[in-house]
Amino acid sequence: MNYPFSARLGTFSSSAVREILKLTQSKSIISFAGGLPAEEHFPVDAVGEAFQRVLAAGNSALQYGLTEGYLPLRESICRRMKKKGVTVTPEAMLLTTGSQQAIDLFTRIMIDPGDVILVERPTYLSALQVFRSNGATAVSVDGDEDGLNLKDLEEKLEKYKPKIVYVIPTFSNPTGKAWSLERRKGVLELCRRAGAVILEDDPYGELRFGDDSLTYPSLFSLDQHPNGSCVVYTSTFSKTVAPALRTGWVMADPEIIRNMARAKQAADLHSSSLDQQTLYQLIEHYDLDGHIEFVRKEYEARMRQMAELLEQQQWPGVTWNEPKGGMFFWLELPEAVDTAELLKTAVELGVAFVPGGTFYAEDPQKNTMRLNFTHTDYEGTIVGMKRLSQALESVLVK
Amino acid sequence: MNYPFSARLGTFSSSAVREILKLTQSKSIISFAGGLPAEEHFPVDAVGEAFQRVLAAGNSALQYGLTEGYLPLRESICRRMKKKGVTVTPEAMLLTTGSQQAIDLFTRIMIDPGDVILVERPTYLSALQVFRSNGATAVSVDGDEDGLNLKDLEEKLEKYKPKIVYVIPTFSNPTGKAWSLERRKGVLELCRRAGAVILEDDPYGELRFGDDSLTYPSLFSLDQHPNGSCVVYTSTFSKTVAPALRTGWVMADPEIIRNMARAKQAADLHSSSLDQQTLYQLIEHYDLDGHIEFVRKEYEARMRQMAELLEQQQWPGVTWNEPKGGMFFWLELPEAVDTAELLKTAVELGVAFVPGGTFYAEDPQKNTMRLNFTHTDYEGTIVGMKRLSQALESVLVK
Repeated sequence: MNYPFSARLGTFSSSAVREILKLTQSKSIISFAGGLPAEEHFPVDAVGEAFQRVLAAGNSALQYGLTEGYLPLRESICRRMKKKGVTVTPEAMLLTTGSQQAIDLFTRIMIDPGDVILVERPTYLSALQVFRSNGATAVSVDGDEDGLNLKDLEEKLEKYKPKIVYVIPTFSNPTGKAWSLERRKGVLELCRRAGAVILEDDPYGELRFGDDSLTYPSLFSLDQHPNGSCVVYTSTFSKTVAPALRTGWVMADPEIIRNMARAKQAADLHSSSLDQQTLYQLIEHYDLDGHIEFVRKEYEARMRQMAELLEQQQWPGVTWNEPKGGMFFWLELPEAVDTAELLKTAVELGVAFVPGGTFYAEDPQKNTMRLNFTHTDYEGTIVGMKRLSQALESVLVK
Repeated sequence: MNYPFSARLGTFSSSAVREILKLTQSKSIISFAGGLPAEEHFPVDAVGEAFQRVLAAGNSALQYGLTEGYLPLRESICRRMKKKGVTVTPEAMLLTTGSQQAIDLFTRIMIDPGDVILVERPTYLSALQVFRSNGATAVSVDGDEDGLNLKDLEEKLEKYKPKIVYVIPTFSNPTGKAWSLERRKGVLELCRRAGAVILEDDPYGELRFGDDSLTYPSLFSLDQHPNGSCVVYTSTFSKTVAPALRTGWVMADPEIIRNMARAKQAADLHSSSLDQQTLYQLIEHYDLDGHIEFVRKEYEARMRQMAELLEQQQWPGVTWNEPKGGMFFWLELPEAVDTAELLKTAVELGVAFVPGGTFYAEDPQKNTMRLNFTHTDYEGTIVGMKRLSQALESVLVK
């Protein structure tokens, strides 16, 4: 039959990353595409032990839970935040199915069709998907290595009166950059004055490279405001523990959290409480900080390997950043190159990346690409970069 | 600050059941409110063993998974469906965070603000929440013990041109009734003719009471149509295995599934793949059908106990059904009684139920209540019914 789909269905565009992920799962392709953590570093034994503790506590572990999430885990996250100088209570926190769901729920309680959301240029493509599927228009603000351009932000806050400004200030997806402290404070001040709420997406904040003197305070921590924070902060255990547990959290003013919980009731009642209880037991009985420290060093080594390989290629007209943390290199190729086209050649040669165009709210810069360096091991990265080099031969002028 | 919430936020009303659930978790209240399974029957050991099998299979068990859900579990569900005479392929199936999420995702791909959804009277209150939060107007169709009134359905299909007709034909929530075969076929025919898609919610289908000769074919199984089924079917492992694993599934034409998967990408990328893998191992290595048979008998015994206690009370002017399966009794009290008011007295006396008014799309019949009989054990049910009797004393005329 002809199914009477909604008009807004057209806005649910499928994510290129996810489609490529599907492809690469079924073939022997070296993938620099997905934002996947290194599997060999997952704390499998610790997860297994934590799960046994959950079940040993009794049958009620398998019962329905609270929409807001397992209270001991929320308390546990509050204690971890405290150590970072952020004071937050369980009433100001909601557990979600990854931070992706936090973005969706927050958008659902804030956005009416036609509303504008300001974003970085480029920004996380699945956030763009969420915004569009909720009827919002994403408009990008210019920026540089230090963060959003304050003048452009001020003009666009004035022009569009956005309800939400969506940012990834610390080890951005896709660019890997980290905002300066000055820029963080400037964005906070401008948004508060304009009455816009900042959605701070921070999945990578704990994956910091370089020495320990380099810290990047979250916008949320800089805005412990007596009359209610203008920052909604979300993060996840997907990168620090494992993605399969699908547990993220969001911290915000309790009024926002209560409304997000109402939206979550309708969306799925609650996320897996088995995963939440497992994470709680893991945090309480395992050296998670030690594990994160280990992963951080490993990822920094992989980043350095890829940086060296990139330098060796001497591709004419290709530039990139050196990420300060997170999971990605961001490459800019000569203007004539369309990386979406290039991807087809690359996949034939057995390597995948994400074409950069999908990360733009408007006017996609098609000569860009995102490379993940955390998922592929040492040998695989060497082979993958060779294949990528082959693919590039056809489009780069020598 | 004053947060600029969306206009549609007003429609995210909090579910009375969930609010009561919160209350009863923190107090020593005997609750006939939530639709909770009996904790003492959860297959805890089998879940533990299944989880160990998952982790033993290697680190990739903790990696990101497919939006559509863990393929071996989808194949496993297909095999279970086959045994029930339903032919379905993994491409026609999506795994969700409980069947609640299936309702939400399907609504999101079908409904534009202002669209009408036809529902039963009364119907599942959290479905009403989803429909309203997506901007739909729910309109109820009259019915009786055998199902929807076909004449009223025909008129309302004509009048409202709904895209979706939402039904729970087998052991309804809240009424516990099961539609006749004739009525099932009639509804199918009318909806197909009108081009409306039926959303068949079937969380309780496997919790059938009485002898084995009583079977209730799903609408989905009755509509294996060459040009695409007009039925979208959703069910869950929450009642047959355990709610904490939060795993439901939806079966529909692959075109619908593909669109729901796109919506799910934006909503949360994918549900817990650890839960999905655990369920797969459980189904493959555990006698799930034997377990369901056991639970079914236990719930039938609990239902009979509550039926006897209800008869003993001899409350004047109070009538009820005898459920044919599922989890609920549905009581009608004298017209002057407002059960939402009665609940306050009841909770003070240490017993909870769900006031019936919340289950209506419009014109709530406030003298109704839903009683769950699966969660409370034998002794607790006796005490709870005594307390309920006390609460009712104040409002029932002797």
